[in-house]
Amino acid sequence: MARGEADALLVTHLPNVRYLTGFAGSSASVVVAADRVCLITDFRYMSAAEALLGEPGYPTADLVRVDRSYDEAAVDTLDRLGVRRIGIEAAHLSVKRHRWFAERLSDGSDAPDAAHAPGSATRRLVPTDRIVETARLRKDRHEVAIFRAAARLLSEVAREVLPGVAPGRSERHVAADVDWAMRRAGFERPAFETIVASGPNGALPHARPTARVLSLGDLVVLDFGGVYDGYCVDLTRTVCLGEPCADAARWHEAVTAAQAAALAAVLPGQASSAIDGAARRVLDDYGLGEAFGHGTGHGLGLEIHEEPRLSRPRPDGQDEAATVDVGMVFTVEPGVYLPGRGGVRIEDDVLVTSEGGEVLTDVPKGLAW
Amino acid sequence: MARGEADALLVTHLPNVRYLTGFAGSSASVVVAADRVCLITDFRYMSAAEALLGEPGYPTADLVRVDRSYDEAAVDTLDRLGVRRIGIEAAHLSVKRHRWFAERLSDGSDAPDAAHAPGSATRRLVPTDRIVETARLRKDRHEVAIFRAAARLLSEVAREVLPGVAPGRSERHVAADVDWAMRRAGFERPAFETIVASGPNGALPHARPTARVLSLGDLVVLDFGGVYDGYCVDLTRTVCLGEPCADAARWHEAVTAAQAAALAAVLPGQASSAIDGAARRVLDDYGLGEAFGHGTGHGLGLEIHEEPRLSRPRPDGQDEAATVDVGMVFTVEPGVYLPGRGGVRIEDDVLVTSEGGEVLTDVPKGLAW
Repeated sequence: MARGEADALLVTHLPNVRYLTGFAGSSASVVVAADRVCLITDFRYMSAAEALLGEPGYPTADLVRVDRSYDEAAVDTLDRLGVRRIGIEAAHLSVKRHRWFAERLSDGSDAPDAAHAPGSATRRLVPTDRIVETARLRKDRHEVAIFRAAARLLSEVAREVLPGVAPGRSERHVAADVDWAMRRAGFERPAFETIVASGPNGALPHARPTARVLSLGDLVVLDFGGVYDGYCVDLTRTVCLGEPCADAARWHEAVTAAQAAALAAVLPGQASSAIDGAARRVLDDYGLGEAFGHGTGHGLGLEIHEEPRLSRPRPDGQDEAATVDVGMVFTVEPGVYLPGRGGVRIEDDVLVTSEGGEVLTDVPKGLAW
Repeated sequence: MARGEADALLVTHLPNVRYLTGFAGSSASVVVAADRVCLITDFRYMSAAEALLGEPGYPTADLVRVDRSYDEAAVDTLDRLGVRRIGIEAAHLSVKRHRWFAERLSDGSDAPDAAHAPGSATRRLVPTDRIVETARLRKDRHEVAIFRAAARLLSEVAREVLPGVAPGRSERHVAADVDWAMRRAGFERPAFETIVASGPNGALPHARPTARVLSLGDLVVLDFGGVYDGYCVDLTRTVCLGEPCADAARWHEAVTAAQAAALAAVLPGQASSAIDGAARRVLDDYGLGEAFGHGTGHGLGLEIHEEPRLSRPRPDGQDEAATVDVGMVFTVEPGVYLPGRGGVRIEDDVLVTSEGGEVLTDVPKGLAW
């Protein structure tokens, strides 16, 4: 905040609110000032927020109840704190809300730039970028413990549901089973819409489960994840119902080798694009480079897609989190997609340690089911 | 767009993208110009998008594949169309992306205001508000048919799962059953995290299911919804395990009467705050006005919370969608919340017709289970 020249930071992005305060409801914002944290929420969450702030050892925080609107409550709080340079999260605050704040903070003038005018009561909005996200990048001991437990549970779910992927069942039915198994295992909810993509549907990297009934010979991509204590884990396996054809076996061999190469490339200080490149090179060697259109992985945390991103170097060189470091957790998930035919993807979750990549998920990778 | 003085509209809000194009993937944007619609998406969705645009009767649209980034692809598309006044969705575009567009469109100058400078090649970003949302407010025949089917299915799910809410089962287990029943019934996914709030947890309007085991005498609030063909439906019932105490019976009576009053107030042209007021008045009469802290309902559509909002009149008089009209679909869901003790909420989905409110959901409302 000091570097960004802000006296206080208005945090409106919910995963950032949760990271800073532990508040897990669906609506809240936070004002962080030099000596004070204010959690703003509404009627629906007052009991939960009071219980949270009253927990033994919880740092001192003020609870602010929304009366009119969240943004009015934020302005009231900023007024009370007397801060002048107000950091906003530029990647999350909308143009509309930003304009509203700019007008409101300049005492009703409708020129957005009036907030910048000189004067004793002047308050200024300061765009900030990735202040909380940067803190979230490297997981602390508490978070790593959650990831270990969550990845172990997700692996158990995978071992439980994979044998149930059988001819005669629909993609939707298998997806419902996966979701139910995750709930029973203790996950709060799916981290994203479970993917069960069979036969030609496997060529769509983000397929939604359909009524398609699985049949012998199908390749089936299962990609699912759960939220555990707020944190997201993510896993993909591809199985073949019956004997794989020669092409399917070769795609699977290539993806397995690509994933192994990427995992071996995980080291503190390694460029994230080099991990991506390791997977891409193997698929290129198999003549399948064109069939791999997405990045090799994404960070995991309170969001299912966060930093770091493992992908090709950006042409402008402006890569965020360009190298991976100890404490980062991300997926490694190369895949190949052959339109009209099918696809293979294999995905595990990895923690960067001083030794390299520690794979947190543990499920057999073979095509056999 | 013409009223907003934009030659083209850049649509980045995903539900709006879906409304305009039918595209159901998780990443896309759209450029709408006077004579052209361009759907921008990435590798993962090209097959799905090509299939969509190739459907018989689908209006002509260009498919643009993202190479570097979504926003680069949007700029390329705007360049190609030669539009100068570019509408953006102010409620959805972030300050960060807005700044990026402003700089990029002014040919690399890093002063955001340069995009406003005069000159032959000048392109200007025009903030717009609720252009697509306004179209989405009134559901067309196709959408109403989806809502009728979805509400019927959700009602069947409710009738199936309510008897399973029994002493000895945990909130989480009941929630998993509800989600599984929704999937089997044909819903794509839950529209939000299913709420099963028993005993004192019922006092938290947005409780998350816990490991709490249900016991005789508990009031249990079940609030769940599903997404069907893209559209969200939403239902709440409260049951009592065993004989309700006198207070519980009275809370339930009050909420039932409040909901009936609100439903009776649904008429084309009615102020949305008057529908809210009808429910609030009944609860006030029961001395429970203070126990009802949220609004009476929210619009349903491609999002689970959209316009209209049924709530108290805003002090500034700036209510969006201040009156309800034929074709609108929303929830009517008064509730009471007694901290430490429990809560009752009853929710149905309503379509406004020329006759009044047509209740789409159909599940007994009694406390008996």
